[in-house]
Parts: sequence; C-alpha cells; structure tokens
Amino acid sequence: MTAHRKSNGDTATSFVRRHIGPSARDVTAMLETVGAKSVDALIAETLPASIRQAAPLDLGKPLSETEAIAHMGDLARENQVFTSLIGQGYSGTILPAVIQRNILENPAWYTAYTPYQPEISQGRLEALLNFQTMICDLTGLDVANASLLDEATAAAEAMALAERHSQVKAKAFFVDKDVHPQTLAVMRTRAEPLGWTLIVGDPLADLDKADVLGALLQYPGSSGALRDLRPAIAALKAKGALAIVAADLLALTLLASPGELGADIAIGSAQRFGVPMGYGGPHAAYMAVRDALKRSLPGRIVGLSVDSRGAPAYRLALQTREQHIRREKATSNICTAQVLLAVIASMYAVYHGPEGLTQIARNVHRRTAVLAAGLRKLGFAPDSESFFDTISVDAGAKRAEIVARTAAEKINLGVGETHLRIALDETTTPATVEAVWRAFGGTLSYAEIDATTREVLPEALKRTTAFLTHPVFHAHRSETEMLRYMRKLSDRDLALDRAMIPLGSCTMKLNATTEMMPLTWPEFGSLHPFVPRDQARGYHALFARLEKWLCDITGYDAISLQPNSGAQGEYAGLLAIRGYHAARGETHRKICLIPSSAHGTNPASAAMAGMDVVVVACEKNGDVDVNDLRAKAEKHSANLAAVMITYPSTHGVFEEHIREICDIVHGHGGQVYLDGANLNAQVGLSRPGDYGADVSHLNLHKTFCIPHGGGGPGMGPIGVKAHLAPFLPGHPSTQADAPVGPVSAAPFGSASILTISYIYILMMGGDGLKRATEIAILNANYIAARLDPHFPVLYKNEKGRVAHECIVDPRPLKTTSGVTVDDIAKRLIDYGFHAPTMSFPVPGTLMIEPTESESRAELDRFCDAMIAIRKEIAEVEAGRFKIEASPLRHAPHTVHDIADDDWKRAYTRTEGCFPAGTSRTDKYWCPVGRVDNVYGDRNLVCSCPPVGDYAEAAE
Amino acid sequence: MTAHRKSNGDTATSFVRRHIGPSARDVTAMLETVGAKSVDALIAETLPASIRQAAPLDLGKPLSETEAIAHMGDLARENQVFTSLIGQGYSGTILPAVIQRNILENPAWYTAYTPYQPEISQGRLEALLNFQTMICDLTGLDVANASLLDEATAAAEAMALAERHSQVKAKAFFVDKDVHPQTLAVMRTRAEPLGWTLIVGDPLADLDKADVLGALLQYPGSSGALRDLRPAIAALKAKGALAIVAADLLALTLLASPGELGADIAIGSAQRFGVPMGYGGPHAAYMAVRDALKRSLPGRIVGLSVDSRGAPAYRLALQTREQHIRREKATSNICTAQVLLAVIASMYAVYHGPEGLTQIARNVHRRTAVLAAGLRKLGFAPDSESFFDTISVDAGAKRAEIVARTAAEKINLGVGETHLRIALDETTTPATVEAVWRAFGGTLSYAEIDATTREVLPEALKRTTAFLTHPVFHAHRSETEMLRYMRKLSDRDLALDRAMIPLGSCTMKLNATTEMMPLTWPEFGSLHPFVPRDQARGYHALFARLEKWLCDITGYDAISLQPNSGAQGEYAGLLAIRGYHAARGETHRKICLIPSSAHGTNPASAAMAGMDVVVVACEKNGDVDVNDLRAKAEKHSANLAAVMITYPSTHGVFEEHIREICDIVHGHGGQVYLDGANLNAQVGLSRPGDYGADVSHLNLHKTFCIPHGGGGPGMGPIGVKAHLAPFLPGHPSTQADAPVGPVSAAPFGSASILTISYIYILMMGGDGLKRATEIAILNANYIAARLDPHFPVLYKNEKGRVAHECIVDPRPLKTTSGVTVDDIAKRLIDYGFHAPTMSFPVPGTLMIEPTESESRAELDRFCDAMIAIRKEIAEVEAGRFKIEASPLRHAPHTVHDIADDDWKRAYTRTEGCFPAGTSRTDKYWCPVGRVDNVYGDRNLVCSCPPVGDYAEAAE
Repeated sequence: MTAHRKSNGDTATSFVRRHIGPSARDVTAMLETVGAKSVDALIAETLPASIRQAAPLDLGKPLSETEAIAHMGDLARENQVFTSLIGQGYSGTILPAVIQRNILENPAWYTAYTPYQPEISQGRLEALLNFQTMICDLTGLDVANASLLDEATAAAEAMALAERHSQVKAKAFFVDKDVHPQTLAVMRTRAEPLGWTLIVGDPLADLDKADVLGALLQYPGSSGALRDLRPAIAALKAKGALAIVAADLLALTLLASPGELGADIAIGSAQRFGVPMGYGGPHAAYMAVRDALKRSLPGRIVGLSVDSRGAPAYRLALQTREQHIRREKATSNICTAQVLLAVIASMYAVYHGPEGLTQIARNVHRRTAVLAAGLRKLGFAPDSESFFDTISVDAGAKRAEIVARTAAEKINLGVGETHLRIALDETTTPATVEAVWRAFGGTLSYAEIDATTREVLPEALKRTTAFLTHPVFHAHRSETEMLRYMRKLSDRDLALDRAMIPLGSCTMKLNATTEMMPLTWPEFGSLHPFVPRDQARGYHALFARLEKWLCDITGYDAISLQPNSGAQGEYAGLLAIRGYHAARGETHRKICLIPSSAHGTNPASAAMAGMDVVVVACEKNGDVDVNDLRAKAEKHSANLAAVMITYPSTHGVFEEHIREICDIVHGHGGQVYLDGANLNAQVGLSRPGDYGADVSHLNLHKTFCIPHGGGGPGMGPIGVKAHLAPFLPGHPSTQADAPVGPVSAAPFGSASILTISYIYILMMGGDGLKRATEIAILNANYIAARLDPHFPVLYKNEKGRVAHECIVDPRPLKTTSGVTVDDIAKRLIDYGFHAPTMSFPVPGTLMIEPTESESRAELDRFCDAMIAIRKEIAEVEAGRFKIEASPLRHAPHTVHDIADDDWKRAYTRTEGCFPAGTSRTDKYWCPVGRVDNVYGDRNLVCSCPPVGDYAEAAE
Repeated sequence: MTAHRKSNGDTATSFVRRHIGPSARDVTAMLETVGAKSVDALIAETLPASIRQAAPLDLGKPLSETEAIAHMGDLARENQVFTSLIGQGYSGTILPAVIQRNILENPAWYTAYTPYQPEISQGRLEALLNFQTMICDLTGLDVANASLLDEATAAAEAMALAERHSQVKAKAFFVDKDVHPQTLAVMRTRAEPLGWTLIVGDPLADLDKADVLGALLQYPGSSGALRDLRPAIAALKAKGALAIVAADLLALTLLASPGELGADIAIGSAQRFGVPMGYGGPHAAYMAVRDALKRSLPGRIVGLSVDSRGAPAYRLALQTREQHIRREKATSNICTAQVLLAVIASMYAVYHGPEGLTQIARNVHRRTAVLAAGLRKLGFAPDSESFFDTISVDAGAKRAEIVARTAAEKINLGVGETHLRIALDETTTPATVEAVWRAFGGTLSYAEIDATTREVLPEALKRTTAFLTHPVFHAHRSETEMLRYMRKLSDRDLALDRAMIPLGSCTMKLNATTEMMPLTWPEFGSLHPFVPRDQARGYHALFARLEKWLCDITGYDAISLQPNSGAQGEYAGLLAIRGYHAARGETHRKICLIPSSAHGTNPASAAMAGMDVVVVACEKNGDVDVNDLRAKAEKHSANLAAVMITYPSTHGVFEEHIREICDIVHGHGGQVYLDGANLNAQVGLSRPGDYGADVSHLNLHKTFCIPHGGGGPGMGPIGVKAHLAPFLPGHPSTQADAPVGPVSAAPFGSASILTISYIYILMMGGDGLKRATEIAILNANYIAARLDPHFPVLYKNEKGRVAHECIVDPRPLKTTSGVTVDDIAKRLIDYGFHAPTMSFPVPGTLMIEPTESESRAELDRFCDAMIAIRKEIAEVEAGRFKIEASPLRHAPHTVHDIADDDWKRAYTRTEGCFPAGTSRTDKYWCPVGRVDNVYGDRNLVCSCPPVGDYAEAAE
C-alpha cells in the first residue's frame, strides 16, 4: 500500500517519464548491449572524472505538466497586454486561427528539421518558395532568401553584402536617420570590429556629398514619414554605391516597390504578416536582391531543380554558400533561418491573397489618415504630410500628460524626447483612435472625422504593379481549402511526429506539447518588445529564473538571452572577449585559435568579430592536437585573444585534456570560447564554467527543447564568467551605454520561445535533466554498440565510449561496393527515416545523435534499418547488381517508381519500396525521387515558376 | 478610395468568405452551368414561394473571428472555475496535453465522419477497438460497444436490453437508491411511456422480495459507499432477472470487476479518463455485456474482419442492428456514439497504461482516505466505512455554514438535504483537502494525517485480475511514442481536412478553427454540470442567446438544449407532443403517421414514446402521398397524435404541399413533428414554425458546425411552438417538477460544444447564414447538373431543381454492367474521396450533399471523379473486362496491391491505383482493401486480438 507513495518524480505519469524514451526495463536491456553494469558505470567510462561536476544540479522540485501550465498562467497574468501603437518595426497582427492551429501548433510543422534532405521536405520547401515569391513580388526585386533572423541583422547583412559588391572603395556606409534605432545599433555593432564607419543623415539632403559604399534607407521611415527615395537612390547609383531599402511589407501592397525605386537590396520584417510580436520574436526577416547579387545573398535560398525522373523538385539552392560556411573568409556567419515564421507569413499571404492584403493595408492606412486628421483638428499636426500607418507629432509640453493618459487607456505610444509616434496596424479599432484623441485632449467621433478624411499616399509613390499573381495566392480563400493545402504540404514532409531524426549535433529531442502551449497565449504573444518594463513583469521573472538556471547548469555567472541563433551567440561571445581585452588596453589581442575539426561557423564568427583565425591541428582520433595548440598559443602569446573549441568534440567524444587546453590558453592571456552545441551531453554531469571555459553559447533549440521549426527559430543565449559579464550585448532600449552593442533587434532576442526552455527545465528539475543526459549518452552508446559490427564507429574514447552521438564510417564500403554516404542517407528514407548528419565533421561519414527522447523500440527500428542497408551493400559487394542498378542508388523510391507498369529494375518492387522491416500500411512516401543538386544550381529558379498571368483570376 | 469602405461583411477576409467555398466569380460560372440567372432566381425555382420566410433573418451584426474570440473571452470570464468535489458521475480530470492538441484540437480527428466506410477509417476504428478492449478489461465482461451518449441514457438502454432478455415477465425494474439522481430521472422518463414500473430501494435489503425483470446497481454508490454487490446480484440471478452495474472506470482499476461480481451488463461514464466535464458533456458512456447478450447490445460495435486480401481489418460490426434501425419494432433509437470522446478516453488509457491508471486511482483513493480520517478527527464520520473516492457525511446543523465556507475557498461540495458529499479526483491536491477540513472547522495538516491513515478498500472487493494487457497499452509511454501513434492512426483515415465528404443528409461543412477554440478553455471545460448557477453565468448567457437565435431561425417559440443527439431530440419532441395531449386529457392520442421514406430512427423514437406507428405511402417521385396521408389522418382522427415528416424530404426535394400536410394533421387534432436533419436547406429562407410544424430537432452537428468527430458528439436541441413549451424535458437539477422528465444526464446536454454553434452564428449573422443556405443549394444543383448526364438525378421538383442534396441513380447500370453501388463507393476512395451516402433513402442509389463550404474546384474534382467512374463502367459495358475483373470491383486499391510484383489484373497498375485526374504525389492510400462484412459478423471479435500475456511487459 505504500509503493505509490515512494514514487515521487519519475513515476508512470511524471513528465520525466514522458520526455525520456526508454523505460527502466529498456535501460537494463540496453546496458547489457553496451556492456555496462549501470548507467553510473557507463557515465564514468564516458565522461572524464576530472570534469565531473561536484554537486548535483538543484533547480527545485520539478512541476507536473498541470502545475507547470498553472505556473505559466500566473506568469502570463503578470504581463499586461496593452494596445501597442509603438511601431518601430513591430506591429499588432491577426494570425488566422486556421494557420495558428495547423502550423504554429502542429508538430508536423514545428518539429521538422532544416530541409537539407529535400526529398522529405517538399512541403515546407514549397511554403518557403511561396515566401520568396511574396518577397520578390512585393519588393520588386529578383531573388529573395528564405528569411533572416530579424530586420536589424538583415540590415547588417545587407551592409556586408554591399561592402563586397560596391564600386566605392571607402569603408564608410550611410544610414538614414529615420531608420529604426535598433537597426542602427546592430549595424554599429557589426561595423565597428570591421573598421567600417557609419554616417547617419538625411538621405535626401546629406547623401550627395557622402563618400560611402552604400546606404540603408527606411521606407516608410521609422517616424512614419513617407518619402520619395528615388533621388537618394539615384545619387548612390551615380557614385557606384549600393542602395539598400528597409521596407514595410504591408505598405508595399500600396506603394511603388523598392525595385521600382531603383534599390539593389531590400530588407525588412515579415512579422506583421500574422506573426505575434512575442516581446521581440521570433519572426522572419527578409532580404531580396537584384539578380546580379544573388550568389552573395546570405541565408538560405530555396530553388527549383529536378528529381531522378526529371520531375520538378524543390531544394535549398547554392548551399555551398552557407551550409559549408566559408570559414574565416566569410563576411557572414549566418547558418539558420526563421522557417516556421516565414511559413506562417507566407501562409498569411496565401490565405489573404493580394486583394486581402490590399484591403488590410487600405484599412490600416485609412485609420491612420483619420487619426492624423483628428489630431490636426486638435492642434497636433503630424510631422509628415505623407505616411502609411505611422505618424509622429510634436507633443510639446503636453508629452508626459498625453503618455500618461494613453497608458490609462492601456495604450502604448512610441515616446521620443519631444515627439510621440503613433503606429496603427490591422488590429487597430476606431475605439482606439478615439482613445488616442482623448489622450491628446479632444473628444472626437471616428465616424465624423472619417467622413471628411482623404487618404494621403502621394501619387508618385502609389503601386501600379501587380503582385502575388501566382495561382497559389488565389486558390485558398476558404478555410477549407486553406486547411487542406497546409495538410497536403505537411504530409509531404517527414518530421519528429512520424520518426526519429537522428541528426548528429542537432539534438532533435521531444518538443513537448505542454512546453509549446503558453507560446500562443496572448499574454506572451501580444507584447511589443519596447513596452514599458512594468508591462512585462511575467517575462522578466521568467528571464531571471531562466538565467539563474542556465548559470547553475553551465557554471557561468551571467547570461545574455539576446542572441537569437547559435551563430549570433558565437558572435556575441567573441565580442565579449574582444570587449574584455579592449577594456584592459589589449586591443592587439586578435588571434583566435580554432581546431581544424570546428564547424565552419566558428571561424566565420571570429572574422566578423575582427579576429584573425589560426588553425590548430587535430590528431588522427579526432582530438585536438594539444602539442600543436600549445605551440601556436606560445607563438601568438602576445596577441592571443581566444580559442574556440567544441565540447564534447564535434567527433562525439569527451576529450580527456579539455582542462589542459583551457589552462594553456589562459596561460597566454587568451579566453576560452566553448561552443555549446553539444551541451546535451553535459547537463547535470559537468559544467563548462567549472573546467575552464569563459564563455559559451547555449543552443536552446537543441538542448532545451525549442523545436527546430523546419529550420528555425533558434535561440543562442550566451553564458559568461563574471569578468566577461560587463561585455554582454547591450541594447538601446535597455542599456544604451553598454560597452558592446546589440547583436539582435530585440533586447531579449526571440523572447516568446524562451517559455519553451523555461517550462522544460521547470518540469524536469535537476535530477530529470541529469537523467536525460545520461540516457542521451546511453542511447548513443547503444546505437554505437549495435552498429559498430556493421559500420565501424569512427571515434571512441579510451574506454570505447562515445558521448551523446557517434560517427559511423561507411567509407571503406565505397571501395568495395561503390556506395556513397548519399546512397545510405537516401536509402534510409525508404526505411522511413530522416538521414543522420552527412559528411560532417568527417566527409563520407554519418553522425548519429539519438537524444534521450527516442525509445528503445525506435532505436532498434533505426539500427535494424542501418543493418539491413549494410546487407544491401553486401549484395552489391557480392555482385548481385552494380551499385548503379541497386536499390541504394535508386533511393529514395517513390509512388512514381512503384507505379511503373514496366518495371525494369534489377530488384523487385518490394525490395525497392518496402525493404526489410518496414510497414507497407503506414509507409511514408516521399513525393520526389533523388534531387539533382547540380541542375538546380545551374538553372536557378527561386520563386514560384510562372504559369501565365493570374492577376485576372483575382476575385 | 471608398470602395473598401463599402465592403462590410462579405469582404476578402470576412468569416463568411472563409466559411463558404465558392468565390463570387465561381458562383457566376456555376449559375451558368445550372442554367439559372441568379442565386435569387435559383432559390425561387427551388423553394416553394408559399413557405418563403417573410422577413430577412436579423441576428445582429456579425463579428469577425478576432471579435468573436474576444467576445468568447468575455463570456468565459463570466464563468467561475471552482474546484468541484460534487461527484455524481462527473470528475475533474487531466487531459494530457499531447492528446488535447493532437486529437481534440486536430482536424484530422475531429472532422472525420462516422466510420461506415471502414477502408478509410482504420485509424479511429483501432482507437475505438482499444476503447472496447479497455471497457471489457475493466468491467470483466465479454463485449463492449464503442460508446453511448452518457451514463444516464446508457442505464436506460441497459434497462431496455434487460427487458428484452429477462426471464421475468413483470414489467417492473429495480433501481438502487444509491444511483445518481439524474440516472434515475432519465430511467423514469424512459420507463413511463412504455408502462414499466421502477422500484427504488436498497439492493442489499429490498431486492429479494421485489418481482423485477432486472436491477441497476451503482458501484461504488453515488454517495461513495462501496458495497459488496454479490448477494444482490445472486438474488437477481436466482429469479432469472438481469443485473446491471453502473461502475466507475477508475475505481475498477482497484476493484473486483462487475463481471467477477456476476453482473450481466455494466454501464457507466468514461468522462474521467481525460475528458473535460464541460458543464455536462460531451463525454463517452460505455456499455459492456456478457457474450450471450452481444447481439442485442445497442450502439455501435467495432469488430475485426478481413479485407479482400485476407488481411485483418476493422469495421463496424453487426450494423444491421443499428445502421438500419428496426423502425417501430426497435426498443432503442440510438444511432450515434461519442467517438471523439471515446477516442480521447482510450488514448488516456494507452498513454497511462495499467500501471499509470492504477497509480492515479491509488493516489485518488489515498487522498480520500486521508480526507475521511481528518473529518473523523473533526467529528464528522463518513456514512460508509468503505469507499473509493467519495464520502458522504451528515453535517447536521453546520451544513449551510460548511457549504458557505467551502464556497469561499472556491470549492463546491455535493449538497444533499442533510448530508454533504465530497468526491475527489486526480486533480485534487492536499491543499484542497486541507481547505475542506477548514470548512468543517479544523486546521489539520495533510502530511500529518497522511502519515497515520490506512486505505480502506475491503479485501473482498480488491481487484485480483490483470487488465490492459494488450501491447498497445504498454508501447506508448513516452510523449514521442504517443504522438507518433496518434499521427499514425490519423494518417490512415480520410477526413474533411483532406477531401470533401459528400454525405447526403449529413452536412459535412467547415468546422472552423475559431469555432473550435474556446471549447478547450478551462472556463468552459472545467465546469461541473451541477455547480450553482451563478458560477455558470457565461454559459447561461450563451444558452439564452443561442436559444433566441434558434427561435429566430426556425420560427419556434422555445428551445430545449438538452437532447444530446438527433435521435434524442426526436424522442424529446415526441414526449412533448405526448405530454401536450395528456395535459388536455387526450392520452388516447397515440397514432403517429410516418411516411415510408422516413429514416428508421423516426418510428423507433415513436415506439419509445409509446406511440403506434401508421405508415403513409409515398408517390413515385418520392413525395408524401397526400391522399393517403389524408385518408389515414381521417381514419385515425380520434387517436391521431402526430405526423413525423422530414423537410426538405429525405429525397432532397422541397415538396410543394408541406403546408397542406400540416393543415391536414392539425385538422385532426394531431401535432406536426418536422425532422430537422435537412435544416441546412432552409436557414434564412424558410422557417418550420411559420408553415405549420409544431416541433423539430436541430442537428447542431450538421447545420451548425459541430464537427462529426468521427461519429459523435452530436447535439439535437428541439424547438417547439409555445403550446408545447411546458412539455420540454425537465431535469432534477433545474426543474424537478416538470411534466416531462429529462432525456439526458445533464440539463443542457453536451453544453461545451454549444460554443461551436454559437460562434458560428455569431460570425455569420443573418445574411451570412442565408448566403450559406443559398450556396449549399447552388452547390447541390451544380453537382446535379454536372452528374445528371452520367448518373440520372432521381428526384427533382417541378422546375427541375434539387434542394441541398441530390440522389443519383446507378441502378440501371447494374443491369448493363453488373456494377453495384458499393463498387462506385469504394472506387471513389481510389479517387481520394469519401463515398456519398449509400442506399439511403433509396436502395442502390447514392445521395450527395456538398454543403456550402466546398469550393467549385473541389466540386469539380468530385464530379470529374464520378464521370471518370462512369467511363470505367462503360468499359465494362463495352466488354473490355467483366465487372469481377474491373478496377471497380477491386477497389479500393492499396499499397499492397500496387506492390504486387506479379500483377495479373486486366488493367494496369496506373489504371487501378491512379485513375484519371488523381495526384500521385499526394495520393491518400487506404490501409486495407475492401472489407468483408459477412466474415466479420460471422466471426465476431470486438476487442484487441490476444497476443499472449503481455502483463509481464508492464514496466
């Protein structure tokens, strides 16, 4: 009768049990397979005793799912949802319910991985192609990417792109004084380490005389002013400089496009296309360029290619630009996107179509015109006669009083030193406009002012070109059609809701429903990032506790939640190191040691931070060559800034000498940047801050359950030791005088998704997190043990253990059979799996990370598939057929293949389509065969292919 | 500049535009196809002018989706969520988030239709088989059905079943005095028209001497008392009477099962297995019986059969019992289930498994034992020494004070005349127990009382048998596995989120996301049906407004929201007529005229209401034979109770003489029951209350957007003219002295889903609803026009128009080709469609109802498929192959078919699997071939097939 009373925590219904795949019984069996006496014994053989953390993680009692949701409700109530008319790049928006529920709240979309395997990603690739088409159409430019992190970083990326392509040699760049302040601040952060000068001014007055390589102009301006930028752009062109226009997408439905104005590049935010503000993010930024610049466009681009049967197939185009970052030669370290948010924005456009978007824009503009007319009547004339949705007025002495009155009506305005900014959006009601008038001292009737108001878009700036003419933007106007379209696309993809995604270094673990729920509550979704802090008390309580937990977990002393991707985290971490050296008068410390095994993003980030990369050799077993490191640290001792190291290594092993490496670098005055990509192998077991690291980024979308969203959002907060804390990124909205500027548009990055990681930690507790790490390591060692006889595991530690992932090596089989790593990866699709990471860090190999969330049954299903593939390779080796004629090379097999009435393969339909152990009934059919990458890059098509003029089909 | 200002209502982004499929442009083109000048002209040709409603529907300004959600938020805040310890058959429960989001909030589950087409319903059929297995295991009986409406109606059904099978001839039935009051009340309602007597007493004292055909015993009792019922059951057996046990499923995890106690039948509620209380519903009731009774078990039963390849396949078993109701010979009119809720309950068991359920039950019981110990300490000894989760105490003079104190702590108790009932559940916390103690006057520490408390289940009643031993209840313990299981099942099914479901008379229209959202808010979900009314102000405001709207729409004067299915509505409507006649001293009026074309439910309902059915002939064109009706009304004038008529007719036509029929019946003192199944053809155009009907039920799950949920929930409120209003169903919790008793367990039926219909009407407004009706009629006439040349449309009115559905007639083709209506239905699956209604109301025909929500593109896709099938039939006619060898007879084609390396069919794979116009890429593959119905009924297997003893696999 007392058994159940003992079972606190890890009971049959506890969250820890739900998060972790294997049962206690499974664990026992798996330990036998890996040859370990216990989980403790396994960990002792895996993790060096020297770095094992002393005390267990104590994060308080874990909450049940029910308790966690109740707690989040309490936090939510501490946030106050005002009507924010702040503008500055963030707008209220209406996320159509059908899109919210069937994309943002649908695991088929949010648990998907980045579409590197195009055959199983055709659904989201189509959605992203729609996004690119929408951006091209609205901006009037030729090629768009599939999103960037936020408008401010997009501006910085555009500046870097301009620097590479400008005919002007000067390292100076012009920035419109009417740009959003956070955009300017992020550009300053970016320009400074590279030695570029920013000139801020009025593009219509100050540009002629400026010797600049390019300029960023805001359209409409941050103040709301709508200017004809043609003269400014012409001036830039005249001197061979590049014109970048930051444009509001909704305004572009009514306005002449940047392309028509002459711009080379357009950037901006797609947030107001249905994506909640989320106290700063996540949302998708965009960038579009003229055709001539397309091969330098940063970020991911979706393109069209053909599959093995010559049928059209989508894929990521020009991946050489970004998947394999050009290391220290790069001018960008970007290696992610905001896929889920870009998908939402594209679906918003698909659902509304051009006529719906235009109607929304007209309504917003009309309301703004009425607002302005009323204010004029009350004696407050807007600064600009022309505007779209935002006006600024000089409130004079009444400023404080007006702000207080609007606050009493639960309305936020944009508050400048003398001026007030009022930005409307599709959620603004006449009642809100009347409330603003009241705050300005008058009681006016919306209907009356409306009756006499004329709209104020200048004729010269009115849009005259069609947009969204492709049928996809016309065929889904009813909810039923929209629902079916989204279902159809998601069915084409393989995500975590159907199978394990064993991606090395990407930690595709459970994204629990309870973790995902508060995200779409209005108290978290509807907060503008620049509301007064007392409206965001719930958020700040969450930030404080999350920061403390992350410090406890990592052994660091301070956290910045600002970086909104892992690469941003690297960059912010290196800026902190740079700031630290500078503050000590050691600006000459610029050498950054990076092992040859590092991810390409590391040297790219170092270059962006103004550092010079020195490569350190690796040993044959994949470990860092400590002697080489010591030699190079000595050689560069005077100028040593940092080492960047991944731990456990990108080879999936805990190297024994990590402490020694840290000591060497510290001994020469350098700082240790420890890449946190593999933190899932450490939580609860060891802490980077304890064994010598000074700073790390933490991929919350890996270790802490933020879903990959099909390729974003991510979050890359950084943890630092106390001496680096003063050099964490600042932000004009919170800490304008910080020694290091902001790296993201919003002070807390993609704040709304921090709820996910917070709830995860809340429900796991310290013991649960440690258990998760242990089982992640057990699962990886189980896979290693099962696969090693068939595909040798490339790297193990001295005791034969891997960390939380393992690299298997099929390279010898290429000699014996001709099989490539691609063949194995694509053949896994026939078995119902996403491929592991291919050819990273070692070309020709596969890196497998199961995470703790996969059950033993699923691990076995995967191992069985790999072993069956090995048998298929053996058949090639035995001469049953050549590799070119084998099911391996023809993989993945599609419905189109099996439908062939005239089957001429050297193997049967069943062998091809339903290999050993797979279910016929529940088979996942990928919609296209193997995609031809070369064809796609040679014939670049990056927007929906033209199908005639569909403008007339518009309702 | 003013165009957008005019566009109120039906704009590009309005809800009406989202709900209705065809665009304005489509409507124009479709009118051309049907040969009508305008929508108005089409309606004039369709609907008799004599019944056209005079004034347009005025339901106020429609709200946008955003406004509607805000409004629902306001209503929600008017409800107060207390902790309800009321018990009486309703418990707080925790719906696991992963189940909530991926079933209750997932259109793949909630938009599915009843699984009459088993090939496209294997997913939910498996979930229902799990439900049946769970019920059989927990009750210890042999066969369970796939759910009933609620516990009270299940009890009434069980009584009727007992009456048919008892060896005792007496028309008296014994009811435990410790049964839930609403159960007793519903049984009284049911017994009275049939002339059965109910004897209420203590089964352990009063049963021996009672001459009864059977008895209903509650286990544990409504008071919480846990009695050993074996002696009572033995006494029943001894006299040849049947023993029915109403049992709590959670308690059964710890208690000896009803089957072990000797019961013949068990009934009860599955609500506490994860289904929110929802102020009364919906949730799933269950019924299980001994093997000997299985062919009389009411409701749907899922069974195993085999498909065309001999592979196992699920299907609805013994459909002859219920799909074709045995008309007036029936003792039950039940023709639906609570599928979505049964699925949730089964998934709750799949996720928790036996060990999780046992742990939950133990926790609940322990908390209750501690509560009792504390109360005893405070001087309030529970009435019963043995209990599971509920205790009753005599509060004496302190009763009112205690109730007031608990209310102040936001806790509801069950309040009797002298006693208080306290029922705990899995959500009860120690803090709540302490609050109850405080209300009883003492401050006690839970931990302290807990330390000295022993549990109180009697040894003789402890469960000793295993349950949920099937692997499905052991393999899904992690959230990842659970998620994948639910996804896998839903992928096997075809629902509205993938394709049109053109079911005649079932009105499968859009179930909009916004309509579905408030349902899962705690303010609607967490209310116990018997909370004090002031805690449910939001609900009652909604009821009042919904009733008014439904009156406006139908022309009736009063509405009862209680009946929780269409058949229940029929029954309630006939009881109202019966009550009306009785109140006028005309109890002899028992004749009910029913046309031969009526749905079988009509005569079954009439029989249950104690009426005698007289069948009225129909004319060749399907209309009621008015002369025969007149003759029979005259003949039975003195005893005429009512006519039951469906309008527009089940033949899909507005008959011209509906007013005349009503007048004839009224002329002979009868009442007119108008079946509201086809109300979707009338809303905004004509009102039954205006043209002579006295009462109708309204299928909210057809006309008013409650999703079908894969076969329930439904809702069948009734509307009546003023003279019948006093005879609407009462309820012991609200109106104990009503002349007619309750027909459902809860006073407002499945209250929580009324939100769906409410929001629909809120967002459509009167004009929108009328537009929906018009387009529903246009869509049906469009299909009729396109299909008529290929499959003649059987019934049209004089102007050649059909109403909102049409019957196409392939019977002549049977002669020319041998093709059956089954062949066409199954072949449609290969084209990606659910079949239309088969062989109702005319055997061998297909009835098609497109609804207003289907777009022209989807209608065309369907018509193209039908026309392509006609061409395939022509190939048989032309002798290309015999029907037995044709793709029609082999349909549906599966992956197993196309995988056949040895294809020997008379047609190609492509012809078989990818017929004209279908997409290969996005093809829906049904998991099994054509299911063998006869085999399944001959070899009845209704729970998960045994796979050895899996108890040891339990963790």
